[in-house]
Amino acid sequence: MDSRKLLTEKVADEIVRTIIGKERKAGDKLPNEFELAEKLGVGRSTVREAIKTLVSRNVVEIRRGAGTFVSERSGVSEDPLGLQFLNDPVRVASDLLALRFLLEPRLASLAAGNCSPEQLAELMELCDACEHAILSGDDFAEENMRFHAAIARASGNVVVPNLAVILCGPPSMLAGTPSEQTRKELARTTREIMSAIAARDGMAAYDAMLLHLALCRRSIAEQSLQ
Amino acid sequence: MDSRKLLTEKVADEIVRTIIGKERKAGDKLPNEFELAEKLGVGRSTVREAIKTLVSRNVVEIRRGAGTFVSERSGVSEDPLGLQFLNDPVRVASDLLALRFLLEPRLASLAAGNCSPEQLAELMELCDACEHAILSGDDFAEENMRFHAAIARASGNVVVPNLAVILCGPPSMLAGTPSEQTRKELARTTREIMSAIAARDGMAAYDAMLLHLALCRRSIAEQSLQ
Repeated sequence: MDSRKLLTEKVADEIVRTIIGKERKAGDKLPNEFELAEKLGVGRSTVREAIKTLVSRNVVEIRRGAGTFVSERSGVSEDPLGLQFLNDPVRVASDLLALRFLLEPRLASLAAGNCSPEQLAELMELCDACEHAILSGDDFAEENMRFHAAIARASGNVVVPNLAVILCGPPSMLAGTPSEQTRKELARTTREIMSAIAARDGMAAYDAMLLHLALCRRSIAEQSLQ
Repeated sequence: MDSRKLLTEKVADEIVRTIIGKERKAGDKLPNEFELAEKLGVGRSTVREAIKTLVSRNVVEIRRGAGTFVSERSGVSEDPLGLQFLNDPVRVASDLLALRFLLEPRLASLAAGNCSPEQLAELMELCDACEHAILSGDDFAEENMRFHAAIARASGNVVVPNLAVILCGPPSMLAGTPSEQTRKELARTTREIMSAIAARDGMAAYDAMLLHLALCRRSIAEQSLQ
């Protein structure tokens, strides 16, 4: 690949290096097309192409009339693991869950030990929203992912927040919905995870997350039978 | 994002859906530009742009004079977790390793139970190459990643092979090299993982992987002091 790499890709990599080198943060503005073209010694059309590539990789975003900015998504693509290319949604959901069993109890336990007061306040809001969404009977994948991703961030591990897509799977991968009974139990264990983190009780957070995941496993089994 | 999504992105998504819908496998050829443009009701230049986007996302690859093919990398981008945007290589290496501690012992244990005779033969070859590379004194990141990725595949979990980048981290993220003593121990535990998998002993594979990772942790600590 390297030797045959298109000029556009090379310029895109250069721009990425600039972002990293200058320690630009999400929301920071990039130099404009003219400046980048001059600095990198290439034409403006190449810069424009490279920027498009970086938009598709969630590295930068274009705001109409305002310019190009470092993306909030910090280079994590929509489907970083190519899960859409795995053709068996039930199998993918079940194997993602197997990974969550390995990761999330420990992350909840770390969050209980490491989360800052601000993170704790954020977790509480997200837990309220998640609980409400679960009990509402509607799709709660989005709220659920936000809560679990915030737990991952609060763990203090710098890599794991970028794995949020693994932690909860792409939304609505399964066609069915959990039964009312399962929803109640999912809401209850969600609250138990939150209470354990708030109490700074790592062991209880670990156990509550395990129980929550076991219920998720049952829910997937139910849905694959629908 | 959705409503403002560029036409190129929409067409790229359409092409992805075609690949998935027709269950095209890695190496399969896509229809040519004319056919795609006609089928999707857009101009050829838009198709060309969309294909470029998909190349940068490792969904397809262009072979000169032959056409466009489904990529072997199955949509897993070069840096799916945006790790290059995390500015602290020692911290990233250490936090990646923390994740490997959670995942890999269990994957080694699953591989001992689930791997096919073909996978076992492949693992043995990769283990030989990895052991040789570790003891050679050169950089062994590539061989090491291949061995660990093959263990992940042999686990039978369909999601986890796409996480290979996590399992071993991007190569040469750390400037230093392990001491000769550490190399010997890494080579020895690599062989122990292999022997346990070959003996179909899940518990021993779990333990050997744990020991191997503990040595990796020490190696990172050594290198961050260099």
